[in-house]
Amino acid sequence: MPFFDIAADALPDYRPALAIPDDLDAFWAATLAETREHDLDVRVEPVDAGLELVEAFDVTFAGFGGHPVKAWYLRPRGATALPAVVQYVGYGGGRGLPHEHLAWPSAGYAFLVMDTRGQGARWGTGGDTPDPAGTGSSVPGFMTRGIDDPADHYYRRVFTDGVRAVEAVRTLDGVDPARVAVTGGSQGGGISLAVAGLVPDLVAVMPDVPFLCHMRRAITITAAHPYGEVVAYLAVHRGREEQVLRTLSYVDAAHLATRASAPALFSVGLMDTICPPSTVYAAFNAYGHPAGSRIDVYRYNEHEGGGGFRWPEQRAWLAALLG
Amino acid sequence: MPFFDIAADALPDYRPALAIPDDLDAFWAATLAETREHDLDVRVEPVDAGLELVEAFDVTFAGFGGHPVKAWYLRPRGATALPAVVQYVGYGGGRGLPHEHLAWPSAGYAFLVMDTRGQGARWGTGGDTPDPAGTGSSVPGFMTRGIDDPADHYYRRVFTDGVRAVEAVRTLDGVDPARVAVTGGSQGGGISLAVAGLVPDLVAVMPDVPFLCHMRRAITITAAHPYGEVVAYLAVHRGREEQVLRTLSYVDAAHLATRASAPALFSVGLMDTICPPSTVYAAFNAYGHPAGSRIDVYRYNEHEGGGGFRWPEQRAWLAALLG
Amino acid sequence: MPFFDIAADALPDYRPALAIPDDLDAFWAATLAETREHDLDVRVEPVDAGLELVEAFDVTFAGFGGHPVKAWYLRPRGATALPAVVQYVGYGGGRGLPHEHLAWPSAGYAFLVMDTRGQGARWGTGGDTPDPAGTGSSVPGFMTRGIDDPADHYYRRVFTDGVRAVEAVRTLDGVDPARVAVTGGSQGGGISLAVAGLVPDLVAVMPDVPFLCHMRRAITITAAHPYGEVVAYLAVHRGREEQVLRTLSYVDAAHLATRASAPALFSVGLMDTICPPSTVYAAFNAYGHPAGSRIDVYRYNEHEGGGGFRWPEQRAWLAALLG
Amino acid sequence: MPFFDIAADALPDYRPALAIPDDLDAFWAATLAETREHDLDVRVEPVDAGLELVEAFDVTFAGFGGHPVKAWYLRPRGATALPAVVQYVGYGGGRGLPHEHLAWPSAGYAFLVMDTRGQGARWGTGGDTPDPAGTGSSVPGFMTRGIDDPADHYYRRVFTDGVRAVEAVRTLDGVDPARVAVTGGSQGGGISLAVAGLVPDLVAVMPDVPFLCHMRRAITITAAHPYGEVVAYLAVHRGREEQVLRTLSYVDAAHLATRASAPALFSVGLMDTICPPSTVYAAFNAYGHPAGSRIDVYRYNEHEGGGGFRWPEQRAWLAALLG
Amino acid sequence: MPFFDIAADALPDYRPALAIPDDLDAFWAATLAETREHDLDVRVEPVDAGLELVEAFDVTFAGFGGHPVKAWYLRPRGATALPAVVQYVGYGGGRGLPHEHLAWPSAGYAFLVMDTRGQGARWGTGGDTPDPAGTGSSVPGFMTRGIDDPADHYYRRVFTDGVRAVEAVRTLDGVDPARVAVTGGSQGGGISLAVAGLVPDLVAVMPDVPFLCHMRRAITITAAHPYGEVVAYLAVHRGREEQVLRTLSYVDAAHLATRASAPALFSVGLMDTICPPSTVYAAFNAYGHPAGSRIDVYRYNEHEGGGGFRWPEQRAWLAALLG
Amino acid sequence: MPFFDIAADALPDYRPALAIPDDLDAFWAATLAETREHDLDVRVEPVDAGLELVEAFDVTFAGFGGHPVKAWYLRPRGATALPAVVQYVGYGGGRGLPHEHLAWPSAGYAFLVMDTRGQGARWGTGGDTPDPAGTGSSVPGFMTRGIDDPADHYYRRVFTDGVRAVEAVRTLDGVDPARVAVTGGSQGGGISLAVAGLVPDLVAVMPDVPFLCHMRRAITITAAHPYGEVVAYLAVHRGREEQVLRTLSYVDAAHLATRASAPALFSVGLMDTICPPSTVYAAFNAYGHPAGSRIDVYRYNEHEGGGGFRWPEQRAWLAALLG
Repeated sequence: MPFFDIAADALPDYRPALAIPDDLDAFWAATLAETREHDLDVRVEPVDAGLELVEAFDVTFAGFGGHPVKAWYLRPRGATALPAVVQYVGYGGGRGLPHEHLAWPSAGYAFLVMDTRGQGARWGTGGDTPDPAGTGSSVPGFMTRGIDDPADHYYRRVFTDGVRAVEAVRTLDGVDPARVAVTGGSQGGGISLAVAGLVPDLVAVMPDVPFLCHMRRAITITAAHPYGEVVAYLAVHRGREEQVLRTLSYVDAAHLATRASAPALFSVGLMDTICPPSTVYAAFNAYGHPAGSRIDVYRYNEHEGGGGFRWPEQRAWLAALLG
Repeated sequence: MPFFDIAADALPDYRPALAIPDDLDAFWAATLAETREHDLDVRVEPVDAGLELVEAFDVTFAGFGGHPVKAWYLRPRGATALPAVVQYVGYGGGRGLPHEHLAWPSAGYAFLVMDTRGQGARWGTGGDTPDPAGTGSSVPGFMTRGIDDPADHYYRRVFTDGVRAVEAVRTLDGVDPARVAVTGGSQGGGISLAVAGLVPDLVAVMPDVPFLCHMRRAITITAAHPYGEVVAYLAVHRGREEQVLRTLSYVDAAHLATRASAPALFSVGLMDTICPPSTVYAAFNAYGHPAGSRIDVYRYNEHEGGGGFRWPEQRAWLAALLG
Repeated sequence: MPFFDIAADALPDYRPALAIPDDLDAFWAATLAETREHDLDVRVEPVDAGLELVEAFDVTFAGFGGHPVKAWYLRPRGATALPAVVQYVGYGGGRGLPHEHLAWPSAGYAFLVMDTRGQGARWGTGGDTPDPAGTGSSVPGFMTRGIDDPADHYYRRVFTDGVRAVEAVRTLDGVDPARVAVTGGSQGGGISLAVAGLVPDLVAVMPDVPFLCHMRRAITITAAHPYGEVVAYLAVHRGREEQVLRTLSYVDAAHLATRASAPALFSVGLMDTICPPSTVYAAFNAYGHPAGSRIDVYRYNEHEGGGGFRWPEQRAWLAALLG
Repeated sequence: MPFFDIAADALPDYRPALAIPDDLDAFWAATLAETREHDLDVRVEPVDAGLELVEAFDVTFAGFGGHPVKAWYLRPRGATALPAVVQYVGYGGGRGLPHEHLAWPSAGYAFLVMDTRGQGARWGTGGDTPDPAGTGSSVPGFMTRGIDDPADHYYRRVFTDGVRAVEAVRTLDGVDPARVAVTGGSQGGGISLAVAGLVPDLVAVMPDVPFLCHMRRAITITAAHPYGEVVAYLAVHRGREEQVLRTLSYVDAAHLATRASAPALFSVGLMDTICPPSTVYAAFNAYGHPAGSRIDVYRYNEHEGGGGFRWPEQRAWLAALLG
Repeated sequence: MPFFDIAADALPDYRPALAIPDDLDAFWAATLAETREHDLDVRVEPVDAGLELVEAFDVTFAGFGGHPVKAWYLRPRGATALPAVVQYVGYGGGRGLPHEHLAWPSAGYAFLVMDTRGQGARWGTGGDTPDPAGTGSSVPGFMTRGIDDPADHYYRRVFTDGVRAVEAVRTLDGVDPARVAVTGGSQGGGISLAVAGLVPDLVAVMPDVPFLCHMRRAITITAAHPYGEVVAYLAVHRGREEQVLRTLSYVDAAHLATRASAPALFSVGLMDTICPPSTVYAAFNAYGHPAGSRIDVYRYNEHEGGGGFRWPEQRAWLAALLG
Repeated sequence: MPFFDIAADALPDYRPALAIPDDLDAFWAATLAETREHDLDVRVEPVDAGLELVEAFDVTFAGFGGHPVKAWYLRPRGATALPAVVQYVGYGGGRGLPHEHLAWPSAGYAFLVMDTRGQGARWGTGGDTPDPAGTGSSVPGFMTRGIDDPADHYYRRVFTDGVRAVEAVRTLDGVDPARVAVTGGSQGGGISLAVAGLVPDLVAVMPDVPFLCHMRRAITITAAHPYGEVVAYLAVHRGREEQVLRTLSYVDAAHLATRASAPALFSVGLMDTICPPSTVYAAFNAYGHPAGSRIDVYRYNEHEGGGGFRWPEQRAWLAALLG
């Protein structure tokens, strides 16, 4: 796919007005308070993943509504007081298998990868976390579950799970709770941005090609899934545009990014039709560029972005940040 | 799509062994009993659809779990004691708008079209019925919601809704409860077959190109959605084949069809890759051909089957049956 | 398909210069005069469509060149002096079957749906009207039949048929000839616009996502069929651009729309690549907005536009207009 | 496309029963007699094609119904009493331009390439021959024009044109009328087979990957155009199967091939989904293999078959035949 | 494909800054000098192509690195001192067979068509010239072979072969070495432009829809192959953009076009996504429009451009030029 | 893709006759002897991959023709005398980056991943190994490079590189040379099978969904790349079938598998159109099932096969084998 969005040289200055709802903070404060009425209830079971150098644990904690959420926790065998990285995964995938997450632990980090509720059946090696919440009329996929009301929207639950994953990792044996970073690609990038806006004391956020950003624009410039699910919904439920955009305004990662303060390392693909570059820059520029922040640009890449080149960049950047 | 299934002239004799679970009847008896603990709670609101000749009503009744299910009820203005037709809709669609359902009422029938819970956002003019049940890891779509356990599977809820729709229509003003037929195309055909197996005293069932039939085979001969959702699920959740096939065996319309006794008018498209002809014949032959039964074959059609030609056939066949 | 045409907020003001031929009125006056030399020869046969509430008739009248054109006529059983709606159908389809046209008659209108000559074999339930005229070298489809000369072009014949359909409906038992409206979607929308420009005393025109508008532009901004047929023709018959554009200028619905005066209810899909929004606005703005006129915008829809939501809008708008 | 038809090693023995109508010969005798009532009216205009070695002429003759049909005639400058090759072109194309037909004349043959009426706008450099006959409801394309009746079918006119082209070439200056061969690829192959069945004294026929053969089977094993046009027609005009197959039985090149006697050089691509190999073998085996006949098999080719390798094979084979 | 590039009416004035390397001339002077150390070693074998009017020869000459390059040479039988046309072929194709190249010889020209090394297996009737040079990590195709260094790039070899083809044709019996023109479409057009920049005394260059022009832009506006191969390479080898663009700057036909002086006849398709029109205009305007130069515009054509209509234009233009 | 190959229950017994050339062993003995004339020349450079637990080294060794081949070598920091796993990569990919290969080292194995010469630019994070050999006319891709002669074929070089990788790993610090296994998926599976046939003393071979098996059949049952490259070649170079099949018979992994003796763990996807299941079974059954051998079947998977589930299976199986 060739360039299709705003001219490449105008992207760094792209700062659209964001339709942030006045009660965004109240909405999320209430949501988190409600969830925190449930005990975090972290359960940790060692698993034999056949890895001599790395310990792996099957973690369960109480996410939104107290619902059990699964994660894998890995750390260098026997290590303690480690900085931790929490990762959220891409759309349709799950936490997979422990041996698929060895880079951070091999580099001396505690690492937790969280399942995305209800997902984990579309690609990869799967997920294990149900989403007990029902849904109104919805397009196949997750974007339009509960889209008629912010209180019901799927990502209200998922972002809350993401916050709880940070809370959970801080309780784990081996983790230095003062040094937690979040990361993820695509949907995982969107969740990590949202979590960065909701958790005040992270040390870093590293979103790659983040999804869920500046959605009001995204649905007019790309037909690709998953943004296309919203278009499909509006194409049938004609006349619900304002209601739908209002709901999405509470779970737009670019909106929550305005509340974040940790240094950020973004990446973007300029030929990315899944998460178009202008929507990523909208989030990056909304984020405010705290000291140390940076966006890495992959000019000839679609949604794969920097791919395997991201981790070495992230590791070096995070190591420098942690000093 | 050219012929791709069993040879066309072998289809009429296709009678595969069906892996019907021993406790199929018990499963459904328990399911229906559980739902019947909830009052049917039929609510009927007249709506102004701008139709001089036809009265339209917005109907709500308690489906599976007592959840509210929406339907439209239409009848010739002022008519009473009419035979009734209940229709279920195709995958992804909803009950739409009243004026889209004028054929049966114009022909002098009471008519009820039921929403499919959670659906109604993929095509057409939409649906209004949520599915309050959550789900485990699932492929976008509805086929794999709760697929790890028959008790949780989506179609357990939907088929129960379908039975309740018959119960509801029998309470409606204008309907002769002794003369109720069910119909539908694709998913609606599968639901109507299932309902025919679960409601003993229907006067007729008219499934077109029915979906949800002989699924064990379907998932090996077509990659098209929605059967493809099951394949996608198994492709990720490798090793769950027996568990998944067991679940599906409780919601296979060809299995429930063996319990049905009302005369049936089927139709099939021989080039249909969505609902392959052998799966339709498997259901038709499992059905047992009660007197008056027939399958209409559309040799050069894909999933559209007989399309608009079906209704005149159905009307004439049903009129003859009703005497 | 995301937005691809002129910016959404500039569309309402889009008023391109139209290359209307000087002799457009003379061309059509001569064409209609020539056709009117043939007796209208309306033949009306009752048909048994199994509809208790609605009477259906198979209508034949003499269209362009005196060629027989088929239509269905439906009305509430026994009603008289009704306002009438004439509908033209979309590209490739035919008049179908009577029970597919129940909305207007159920709402108390006389209704006539006209076959499009030669079409009716591409989708739906078919058409029954031949086109006795031959053609020069043409691309598969109908757009390029006779495209080298306005006198030979396919739509000269079809628009004339459309005018004759109005003349025919005015002769029918049950119709109030002073209250005739025309409507249709896509090709049907284009025909209805053309007819509105050719018949001075219609009460209303209701084109949805009209085709055949501002074709000079359309063939440079969309590759989709049917506009793509013209591109395909020019890609082979290189050098005939002026000749072809000249021919099309006589059958451009936006050109004929400038001659129309009845109130109009348009609709447009902003993601419509078949009939791009700028071409629809070109027609709407050329139409001149007589009192009561309006365009309904479907922002997230492709060529399906408002779909089933159109009829309630049209019915209410027309009822208000008729007082 | 991999192998998809009958097993490759069974193809040489594939001899299906052909549903040849009893009155096939009478039908064609009457058709040709009717056309021969029109004077052949061959007009020959020299054209300046910039070719020093080859003379080119624009030829017009009266085809079916006396309609003017265009052709190019080329011959080595000044040569006389040459053997002649008549070529028919593939679906959608036209006679193109003279310089595109230099192989046969450069090899010392008189050469005539006939336009296919109404075609010539889909690819290449175009055609110039209208088809004055109208058509009933038809699928875009040419296959279903007049398909409800053999008398009206498009290929009745085209095959007749093909016979007249042979008659015309025999009148041309430079041609030895006793030595005329016919050839063509795809549709051109089908026409050449048909002509070989209708003209008793050809010296050879050279069809490549012929279309229009054993159509009753073709429409069940391929969805590709143009056979797919017939499927599309039947998919809408449900119930007309026998009528349509009857019509096609009069214009099936495999049927007419049974009447042919000139030596034949066929070719076939075993991966050809446009003209599946079993349909080509059905024609080849129906043809009867007069002395010198042969079929060249291109095992890994789709519809392009032998492509540019065919002409050297044909030239050598024809030269040997002519002695 | 509709218009997708710079507005059609702005194209004639499109004159982008070209990043021509300072040592472009030195690079090519060294390259040609190096090759000229190898004897040209023209070998000419008559072949029997069955063509009475035209003589055909299998030609081999020493291209880049002294590697043997194949070509066909055709001329009117027995003619001498003819003007010559050298043709280069499109991407993936080969010199094919002699009878496929009859237009120029039939018009009284000597004609040589050169194989493109390593190509000739993708379409048509093939090529016979290996490329003995190896390659680094490369995308399937030829664009990225040796792309990390101008000295290793594939088109350095091919353009050199192209220059040598001109040198070879000038040695052939029948050719007037003072009257040599070059031509080709797509890749062949790019090669002919490059050769025109490298050979000072050609009489004309006739590139159609030339490839390899203004590549820095091309890879951002089209995803189609072969430009897409470069994008694919950069998408994997992230970070090599400057290195790759530097390499391409030495083999950009628009860059070499600035060194050319022979009159030029270009053509361009305004809907061409393979070789977008702005890249062709960039070359045409860089070329400098020597007297007699012209660009023919095909407004509704994709990459097929003028197709068979080109040769008559070229022949007439060249004849006029040669006087 | 649904099932498309031999019936699933017949696959375990599929044992086609293989056209193994008589001199297969001599061919490979000569090839390896020739390569072994070049010193293995293993160079090992430590790299800083940011991995605390694992040491990474950039390895270069002399492959076929003495050409330098790159690999990554990883081992648990400081470990010695480890069993080693050598991995070959899939078509178009390269060795990537060290942190992408952490599973085996984390499990206590020495691990070497070899670049595939010339590849590494199609997906992932790239490769660094050129292929210095040139090629004849070839289809884009690697399958047809040198396909006219076994001595020139690309996989002769690659398989030899694969053998040398085993020789190289045995020299590395940390490796127990008596305990070396080979593995890989798709192309990597084919290479590992070939190496298993050429290196007598491996402890195990673990090919997943292997490519390059029973190619004579593969090219008739799938159109997908890369097998499709051979079809494309034969479609142009008509008539070279026997020559091409002869070449491939020397580099068919199923042929070399007949010479292997180490226990094997295969896997296959029954819906795999890239490497169809019958071709995998042909190799597995040709392999001869030494004690401990097994094939894992993924019934609902395409070419992704078991994906991330393979490594735990392989690790457990290999651990059991090593005792």
